[in-house]
Amino acid sequence: MSNRPQPIEYQEASPEVRAVFDEIKAHRKISAVTNFWKYLANDPALLGRTWATQKAVLAPGALELVVKEMIYLAVSITNGCDYGIACHTALAKKAGMTDAMFGELVAVVGMANQTNRFADAFRLPIDPEFDL
Amino acid sequence: MSNRPQPIEYQEASPEVRAVFDEIKAHRKISAVTNFWKYLANDPALLGRTWATQKAVLAPGALELVVKEMIYLAVSITNGCDYGIACHTALAKKAGMTDAMFGELVAVVGMANQTNRFADAFRLPIDPEFDL
Amino acid sequence: MSNRPQPIEYQEASPEVRAVFDEIKAHRKISAVTNFWKYLANDPALLGRTWATQKAVLAPGALELVVKEMIYLAVSITNGCDYGIACHTALAKKAGMTDAMFGELVAVVGMANQTNRFADAFRLPIDPEFDL
Amino acid sequence: MSNRPQPIEYQEASPEVRAVFDEIKAHRKISAVTNFWKYLANDPALLGRTWATQKAVLAPGALELVVKEMIYLAVSITNGCDYGIACHTALAKKAGMTDAMFGELVAVVGMANQTNRFADAFRLPIDPEFDL
Amino acid sequence: MSNRPQPIEYQEASPEVRAVFDEIKAHRKISAVTNFWKYLANDPALLGRTWATQKAVLAPGALELVVKEMIYLAVSITNGCDYGIACHTALAKKAGMTDAMFGELVAVVGMANQTNRFADAFRLPIDPEFDL
Amino acid sequence: MSNRPQPIEYQEASPEVRAVFDEIKAHRKISAVTNFWKYLANDPALLGRTWATQKAVLAPGALELVVKEMIYLAVSITNGCDYGIACHTALAKKAGMTDAMFGELVAVVGMANQTNRFADAFRLPIDPEFDL
Repeated sequence: MSNRPQPIEYQEASPEVRAVFDEIKAHRKISAVTNFWKYLANDPALLGRTWATQKAVLAPGALELVVKEMIYLAVSITNGCDYGIACHTALAKKAGMTDAMFGELVAVVGMANQTNRFADAFRLPIDPEFDL
Repeated sequence: MSNRPQPIEYQEASPEVRAVFDEIKAHRKISAVTNFWKYLANDPALLGRTWATQKAVLAPGALELVVKEMIYLAVSITNGCDYGIACHTALAKKAGMTDAMFGELVAVVGMANQTNRFADAFRLPIDPEFDL
Repeated sequence: MSNRPQPIEYQEASPEVRAVFDEIKAHRKISAVTNFWKYLANDPALLGRTWATQKAVLAPGALELVVKEMIYLAVSITNGCDYGIACHTALAKKAGMTDAMFGELVAVVGMANQTNRFADAFRLPIDPEFDL
Repeated sequence: MSNRPQPIEYQEASPEVRAVFDEIKAHRKISAVTNFWKYLANDPALLGRTWATQKAVLAPGALELVVKEMIYLAVSITNGCDYGIACHTALAKKAGMTDAMFGELVAVVGMANQTNRFADAFRLPIDPEFDL
Repeated sequence: MSNRPQPIEYQEASPEVRAVFDEIKAHRKISAVTNFWKYLANDPALLGRTWATQKAVLAPGALELVVKEMIYLAVSITNGCDYGIACHTALAKKAGMTDAMFGELVAVVGMANQTNRFADAFRLPIDPEFDL
Repeated sequence: MSNRPQPIEYQEASPEVRAVFDEIKAHRKISAVTNFWKYLANDPALLGRTWATQKAVLAPGALELVVKEMIYLAVSITNGCDYGIACHTALAKKAGMTDAMFGELVAVVGMANQTNRFADAFRLPIDPEFDL
């Protein structure tokens, strides 16, 4: 047993895992799944649940896909998650984020992280109109 | 000297602080500034810089105001900042966020916080196509 | 058994806990310990270890006490910990932090939280001179 | 003086540091200490205190070692700490964590990070039965 | 439209939401769902998905329920999530966590948050044996 | 359009960006700007605002530069931001931080991250004297 988690490649995957991989590839129109899915496949139940949730969460709805991907990216930057930042920068661009939109997103994320600390440092009471 | 920071009300504010308060009220079409600005006014230079940056960051640009406010809210939720959550839920709604859009935002924020941890736990190598 | 942790008051404390309480009171020249110590006393070993470490970490050394308390406060703000913010604002003031110093501390903490996100968002390679 | 912290190797260590290294090696039955201890040795007092605390915290008690190591790992994943994740995945496995247990741990950690954000986003009032 | 999210009570809930509430009550043997579920019910799809995932994640498996609940609590403490801390302290106690186990859990969580910062501050290279 | 942000080098920069680079080099007495500024230059308005704020925040005032840089470093360690840690360790050393001061800073940062979690875990009520 290795200390470092290892990816499950398609060739060695169980039928249960292959079925999820096939659905991801068909749904996203890609020829191979990314590392995220290959590593989650170590726990087939986790892989299946995560794909089902992600498909539902990112489906077209009240928000456009590009907005959802930018929110995903904003959270990943705030968490300092290298993989999430790389992955969702690419997916947001694929969904329509331009370089100018990325610049404005980074500016908002930076300002929010700054002003959240100001709010906590000054122990701000919540204004009544925000709390109705 | 109190241990808990205190707000600076308009009546007791210096001319320098009043000038910023007046500009915020005119720009946002509100009759009084919120607690955020009243507490920052304890350091007039910090108040002035923060307002100048926030006005620039939230100005119309490549992203609509409602999208910027939703990104601000997503960061505030991820940081668990009570004031930021209350304030930017209200400001995002004012800018056009519906209850359905809020529900989808929360779902994306939750999923991103979950999958960021999966990425770190499995020590995912970044796929080459995300790193070009 | 309550779901919410309860404080251990001096009168009901074991001799082992009373000894730590007495040492804290003597060392800090206060007449009663704060809630932090009353709750930690639920696990006497944790109480003892935490006091021993805190006494050593905050002892005079290469950094003055006021600088140590401001660093403690900067971390508490970044973590959004209400108790830590309230407690270490008071302790830093007791050690000599003025309102002007507090204002500058908050400005640095806010900027650092902002630029940390810029660094992650742009995936900055570390400059060679920082990595020698 | 280098900008990047450097490890203290056994050969160059002071008698005070060597004594701690020797105790760690004897206690953990390993032939050399890991990088964590070699770098902390730059501050011998910090090294000594940290080892004393870690030995006490991880000693057998009300919780088994494998449970303590899994809690350590869950925190490290939540903080996105690369070294902590690598180190405590290995130590938890040494203490008995199987691949199936790791998969379930990751699932719980992910869900907790997700639902913590839901709780904050919806500003949940704490149910009375949790607060007794 | 209120700025503050509101709970959906059973009486006013749609049949879709009632069905989830009924299943939660039956599964957990409780007479009413907690606030977490009442607020999530504002987005019935989010409610349904979250319950399905939580039921699967917390089901008996390679880890006992009490261990899963303690991991959930350790993450909630690290995130500083008030609701999560209150809720999962109670649920962990219901699953068998004693006061002594809680004390040891808190000690491990505190130490992990401390040593994660040491690892980052000293920029520790990962030892080869942790990375196999 | 690349997925990975790219630096803007001086030779290819617009006059607006060059003007900021020139000011940074003159102010800091360095021959080339670091990666932080080269990447921010992708959004010239963000670059200009960030430099103006950073110059103001780090200017001599109620706190010495070395104290401001140590607070910056303490936040970067708490956020686990690799670039911020490397950069502000070097800048704090340049401003006068010795190895002994660094050791004590790390000890305080570690202890604060530990005790912040204790405060949250025990749900500490804020002592009245901290809240005046």
